[in-house]
Amino acid sequence: MSFQIQTEFAQPFMDPSLFSSVLQESKDAFCRVKEAYQTMTSPLGWFSLPEDYDKEEFDRIVKTAQAIRSRCDVFIVIGIGGSYLGARAAIEFVQGPFHNKIRSDGPEIYFAGTSVDGDYLQNIVSICQDRDVCVNVISKSGTTTEPAIAFRVFRTLLEEKYGKDGAKDRIFITTDREEKPGTLKELAVREGYETFTVPRNIGGRYSVLSAVGLLPIAVSGARIDLMMRGALRAMQDFSSDNTHTNLAIRYAALRNYFYRQGKKMELFASYTPALELLGEWLKQLFGESEGKEGKGIFPVSAIYSRDLHSLGQYVQQGERTLFETVLKVNHSKSSFMIPASADNVDGLAYLENKSMDFVNDNAMLGTAQAHLDGGVPTIVLSLDQNDEEHFGYLVYFFELSCAVSGMLLGVDPFDQPGVEAYKKNMFRLLGKPGYVK
Amino acid sequence: MSFQIQTEFAQPFMDPSLFSSVLQESKDAFCRVKEAYQTMTSPLGWFSLPEDYDKEEFDRIVKTAQAIRSRCDVFIVIGIGGSYLGARAAIEFVQGPFHNKIRSDGPEIYFAGTSVDGDYLQNIVSICQDRDVCVNVISKSGTTTEPAIAFRVFRTLLEEKYGKDGAKDRIFITTDREEKPGTLKELAVREGYETFTVPRNIGGRYSVLSAVGLLPIAVSGARIDLMMRGALRAMQDFSSDNTHTNLAIRYAALRNYFYRQGKKMELFASYTPALELLGEWLKQLFGESEGKEGKGIFPVSAIYSRDLHSLGQYVQQGERTLFETVLKVNHSKSSFMIPASADNVDGLAYLENKSMDFVNDNAMLGTAQAHLDGGVPTIVLSLDQNDEEHFGYLVYFFELSCAVSGMLLGVDPFDQPGVEAYKKNMFRLLGKPGYVK
Repeated sequence: MSFQIQTEFAQPFMDPSLFSSVLQESKDAFCRVKEAYQTMTSPLGWFSLPEDYDKEEFDRIVKTAQAIRSRCDVFIVIGIGGSYLGARAAIEFVQGPFHNKIRSDGPEIYFAGTSVDGDYLQNIVSICQDRDVCVNVISKSGTTTEPAIAFRVFRTLLEEKYGKDGAKDRIFITTDREEKPGTLKELAVREGYETFTVPRNIGGRYSVLSAVGLLPIAVSGARIDLMMRGALRAMQDFSSDNTHTNLAIRYAALRNYFYRQGKKMELFASYTPALELLGEWLKQLFGESEGKEGKGIFPVSAIYSRDLHSLGQYVQQGERTLFETVLKVNHSKSSFMIPASADNVDGLAYLENKSMDFVNDNAMLGTAQAHLDGGVPTIVLSLDQNDEEHFGYLVYFFELSCAVSGMLLGVDPFDQPGVEAYKKNMFRLLGKPGYVK
Repeated sequence: MSFQIQTEFAQPFMDPSLFSSVLQESKDAFCRVKEAYQTMTSPLGWFSLPEDYDKEEFDRIVKTAQAIRSRCDVFIVIGIGGSYLGARAAIEFVQGPFHNKIRSDGPEIYFAGTSVDGDYLQNIVSICQDRDVCVNVISKSGTTTEPAIAFRVFRTLLEEKYGKDGAKDRIFITTDREEKPGTLKELAVREGYETFTVPRNIGGRYSVLSAVGLLPIAVSGARIDLMMRGALRAMQDFSSDNTHTNLAIRYAALRNYFYRQGKKMELFASYTPALELLGEWLKQLFGESEGKEGKGIFPVSAIYSRDLHSLGQYVQQGERTLFETVLKVNHSKSSFMIPASADNVDGLAYLENKSMDFVNDNAMLGTAQAHLDGGVPTIVLSLDQNDEEHFGYLVYFFELSCAVSGMLLGVDPFDQPGVEAYKKNMFRLLGKPGYVK
């Protein structure tokens, strides 16, 4: 496996001595992250997770996932935000965007509890009709409105379909370990559901390599042991404060440097559609970690070349307030070649018997050069393949980069005080007990 | 049907006399759009399309779509940008994001030619295995790289599967009407494929209600006659330059007003996941029309409440450089109710037997209030239902608003000069004849 940062399309926008000083600040920020971990002043469990994760629970996740795979046609994952995006990003990263259409040896996987739209929930319920179903509910407390509604619907559905006893073996709960009254854990113990743990010292958006993400990922057939191995390797690669070898320090410095130059948006772009949900995960990770106190880089994501035919015009010639971070996969899995053709009506003869990778690579290079010419810096993060090991590696890299970025920006990268605002208003409007109308 | 603009969550940020002058400018911009239509100085065919569309071709689209629906299990739509987003947005708007999973009386629909990723194309090819396939290629010239590669692959696949003669009845071409050498039209005539027309006086991103979008939309089972009826109604509603009744003039003025106040991003948010692709269509429409000459509002989209748990923190407390436009659907199709439950471990008793719409409405109101408190103005565009008629209505409303917005900003809303930059570099790198290496 390999992972690199290429800055040739960013350097023309950079003043070396200025960057060098930001890089030093980034190193200091990294040291503060490490210190926060050692003094346990922040929820930094993810920092050492690849090494000290719960091996017993991990084995149980692998076994449970196998059982779920053999027991159902449809697997419903209920969760929102950090209890949703990581697993979905991992599954699409490894299995591709059509995983529910092309795999045949495991269940289809759907994500519910992500909204309160009735049609969306109704659609998923109708997909379950006449098919065997298992459910994984992922929620720290169990009282977040969106997943709570979805769980109520699916618990009812499973109990009607299999009886209370049958449903028991098809419901899996990932939640806080403590059995306080009114919690999901209490319900799980009472009903006899198998449970997994949402770690207390890991915030939602940093939790994909805990049980929160790992159970659904394993149910998809992806190998979570390889993911943990990739994450461990990243942990080792980015453990020192050497600003040359620690790419997380360097990437955080690059982001922060461009932000200071007035580049207020980071556009995460990939030429591999399987990475679309990773883009969504990155938006949560960075947006929620940095967007506070009137500050922060606004995260945007796109799949190229598709979105060069929608956002491309703006990127090339609109306001010069963005930089790009390209996630480049060097080798696709299929080695698809462009077929020969007797006629050449499509003008593609010059590409015959060339690989799609060859075309995609040059689309990337041509675009980075065009955007450079247009005033948009591009940072390229390149990886060999979109497999489990690279996913684990990337997750650790981005989590660490994000923590360092937040420290560098002067905000707390581990809280999200603004997320409560809409909920409070909503509860009041809905007449929830305890909220004055 | 109904459509409204609500500004109660935007007004606290607005100076009435300043807005009144922008509104006057917007009215002038509307008159310039109308004038450009009358003098035919811009590709404004969409302006009167709901009235003067080609009725003969329309009937042929309806008939062909019926034939395709009975002839295949999988329908592949090959196109990129404006030849992709409109149809996909319409299909998901009407049929929902799970249309390939829950409908049973028509083919599954996949979109290819949107990227040069080999795995993506390989996945779609494997979905076609052992199933009957029809293909619609949508390309003005037929030489755009991404769709040209996909068409070469699927033409080969169909000819191997059905023979040259059999393939002929399964390939449908939407392209320029003129049969010049080396064009898709020439190929279609030679091979005997049925063709439909990409209108010359309508740019790609404004073309969804022409054959470009209508054939795939009709294949999905959506009623395109109702779409045209909705568009016609919008055309009538927004024909006068009365700044009170012409909501397109008002919306363009609101957008431009906030842009002048330093709100550089417009976040299109909907609480209805079926509108996710409409968000992508809007990003192309507005981004490509406005993002030029160093200007333009950067378009972003999100589905709430899902993305309140990712972008929500930033929207609430990050840099104050954005405004929101919410697309609110008043009535979902399913009238889903929250079921009663014997225990109340999830704390949802206060919502029992309430509709999901009720919860969703209050999530919207609570969020708009929270964002107002946080310094983010919200414009609410509300519609009764996400059905065909409203889709047609919205398309016309947004196209007109976009043209007016571009004029107001002082750019040409109908060109996209920046899209060529990456292509030129890519062709050079790929060694395309005529491009110096």
